[in-house]
Amino acid sequence: MSSAVNRQWRLVRRPSGPLDASNFEWVAGPVPAPGDGEVLVRTLQLSLDPTYRSWAAGETYVPAVPIGAVMRGIGVGVVDASRSPAFAPGDLVQGMLGWQEWSVQPARAVSNVVLPPGMPLYAALGLFGHIGATAYFGLVDVARPKAGETLVVTGAAGAVGSLVGQIGRILGLRVVGIAGSDEKCAWLTNELGFDGAVNYRTEPVRSRLAALCPDGIDVHFENVGGELLEIALSMITLRARVVLCGLIAQYNDRIPPPGPRTLGNLLIKRARMEGFIVLDYANRFAEAAQALAAWYAEGRLRYRVDIVRGLELAPSALSRLFDGTNQGKLIVEVAESS
Amino acid sequence: MSSAVNRQWRLVRRPSGPLDASNFEWVAGPVPAPGDGEVLVRTLQLSLDPTYRSWAAGETYVPAVPIGAVMRGIGVGVVDASRSPAFAPGDLVQGMLGWQEWSVQPARAVSNVVLPPGMPLYAALGLFGHIGATAYFGLVDVARPKAGETLVVTGAAGAVGSLVGQIGRILGLRVVGIAGSDEKCAWLTNELGFDGAVNYRTEPVRSRLAALCPDGIDVHFENVGGELLEIALSMITLRARVVLCGLIAQYNDRIPPPGPRTLGNLLIKRARMEGFIVLDYANRFAEAAQALAAWYAEGRLRYRVDIVRGLELAPSALSRLFDGTNQGKLIVEVAESS
Repeated sequence: MSSAVNRQWRLVRRPSGPLDASNFEWVAGPVPAPGDGEVLVRTLQLSLDPTYRSWAAGETYVPAVPIGAVMRGIGVGVVDASRSPAFAPGDLVQGMLGWQEWSVQPARAVSNVVLPPGMPLYAALGLFGHIGATAYFGLVDVARPKAGETLVVTGAAGAVGSLVGQIGRILGLRVVGIAGSDEKCAWLTNELGFDGAVNYRTEPVRSRLAALCPDGIDVHFENVGGELLEIALSMITLRARVVLCGLIAQYNDRIPPPGPRTLGNLLIKRARMEGFIVLDYANRFAEAAQALAAWYAEGRLRYRVDIVRGLELAPSALSRLFDGTNQGKLIVEVAESS
Repeated sequence: MSSAVNRQWRLVRRPSGPLDASNFEWVAGPVPAPGDGEVLVRTLQLSLDPTYRSWAAGETYVPAVPIGAVMRGIGVGVVDASRSPAFAPGDLVQGMLGWQEWSVQPARAVSNVVLPPGMPLYAALGLFGHIGATAYFGLVDVARPKAGETLVVTGAAGAVGSLVGQIGRILGLRVVGIAGSDEKCAWLTNELGFDGAVNYRTEPVRSRLAALCPDGIDVHFENVGGELLEIALSMITLRARVVLCGLIAQYNDRIPPPGPRTLGNLLIKRARMEGFIVLDYANRFAEAAQALAAWYAEGRLRYRVDIVRGLELAPSALSRLFDGTNQGKLIVEVAESS
C-alpha cells in the first residue's frame, strides 16, 4: 500500500436540506487489513449521483447510511492485497467502495471492471455501469417504446438523461429533452441528435413543449419532477408511459411538495406511471452494457464526464448535481490509476 | 307508442362546479320515428354515474355532450317499433339511450339485454353491465392481484367499489374499504365480508388504515382521489399497483387540486399507477358478466340498488353520487317495465 493513512468522509448529520460538507466529517485512520476471503481496495474513482442524498437522509429503497459510518458510494478501484482466490493485486474492481481512499471488501461485494478496449476507467461508472443500465432498462424495459413515438426526457443533459435520449433516437423515437441551460440544450440538439430541447430556466416550457410535441407525449422519462412533470402529464397521449426514474427537484425538500395537478390525465388517457430503481436490474447489467457497447462502437452514443480531482471535494461536488452546474457524469477522482 | 310526447333533459350550460338542474333544460317534443335500420326505444331505466359530470363539462376520454343536445346516459329500454331485422317490438335493449323517454337508435348502437333468469332489469346497468365490468377488469386485468395481497378500495360502498372488494375477497385478498358513513362501513364488513372498513368522515384515516393494513397496501383501487390517495400511496408495498378508476373528489373542481405529496413513493417502491376506463373493455363485457354470474349464483356477491323514480329527478339524483347519500347503484326509473 502506498499510503499510511485512509482518509474518509463519514456521515455525522442527516440532511434536512441539501447534503453538503456540514453533514460530513473528514477523518483519517489507518489503512485496514483484509481478512480471509477479503480484498484491500484502493479507491480510484467514485461516482456522484443525486440519489446519494436519499441514502444519507433516511431509509428509502435501501437502508440509510448509519450515522458515524463512511458515506456510501459506488466506485472503481484497484486491488492492493487479496486474501481471496477470486482477485489478485492489480485487478480493477467496482462496488460500493464508499467515500474513502482504502477499503476492505468481501470478495463477493466487488466485481471485475469489464470495459471495451481503449475505454477510460470512468466509463465503468457511466456508460458501462449503473448509469448506462438506468437509461437502458428504464427506457427499454419499463417504458417499452415503439418506433415513431415521442419521448420527452427531463434532466436531459444529465448522465442518465443524455443516454435515454440517444437510446430513444436509436430506437426510432422523436426525442425532446428538457435541460437547464442554452449550452446544454445546444449540446442535445447539435451533438446528440435530439429532435428538440427546452431550456426550462428561460423558456416557457408548456408552449415550447407543445410546439415540439405536436402529437403529444407517448413516453415521458422523469428525472426531475415538480412543475416539469405536471406539464408533461398534461400532454400525454392515450396509453402513454411515464417512467419515474428520479425526482431531483424535491430531494432537498423537508416535506415533499404536492404532486401534479394533472395526475387525473393518467386516468383519462389510461396511462401508466411506474417507478424504477436500477438496483432491481443488477443481474442484467451485462445485457445493457452489451447493447450500449455495440451502439458506442457504431459511433451512435456520446457522453460527457465531469471529473473532480480529490476526495476532499466530494461533498461540495455533490451539490453541483442539484444546481445543475455539472457538465456530464460527475466523478470524483480519488487517486490516479497507474 | 303509449305517449304522445318525449320528455328530455337537454344540456344547456357546462358545469363549472357541480352538475345539477341549472345545467339542463326540461323539454318535451314529439316522439321520433325510426328510419331504415333504426329502432324506436322506450327508455325504462337510466344509470347515473359520477363520470357523467365529465361528459357534460368538456372533452375528456369521450367527446363532450354538445350544448343543446340531450344529456348522454347509459340505459335499458324496450323496442317499441323496429325497422331493423335485428330487433323486434318488445325486445329489451341497452345502450346510450340518453336522458329522455324515447329515442331512435341505429340498430348497431343497442344490444339485447342478457341477464341470468330471475334477475331484475336494473342488473343490466349494474352487476351485469358497465359497473360489473369496471370492477372486474379494473381489479383482475389492470391490478393483477395475487392471493394473500392486501387490497384497499376507496368509494368502497359505491356501485363499483363494493364489487371490487367482493371480487378481491373471492380472489383471496385481504380487503379494506374506505367509505363515508358508519352504516356503509358496517355493510362492508358485516354483509360483504370486507376484512376492515374506515369511515373517512369521522375516523383518522392514516392511523386506521395503518392498523388494518399492517403489511402495507399491495393493490390500491382508487375511485375518489385527493387525500385518500395521498395516504394510500404512503403505505404501498414493493411493486404495488394503483388503479386509477375514478377521482370523484375532484370532479367538481374548476382547477384540479394538487396531486399527492407521496407520489415519490411510486419511485421508491417501483410501483405502478395506471388509469383505467371500462369503455376500452367493451368487447370483453361478456367475459366479466360470465364470471360475475357464476359468483353471484354461488351467493358470493351482493349489491344494493338505489332507484329514483321519474326522469324529472335525474339532475338532482346525480348530486347524491357526489355527496355520498346514495345507497348503492343509482338508477333512474323512467318507465315501469311491463
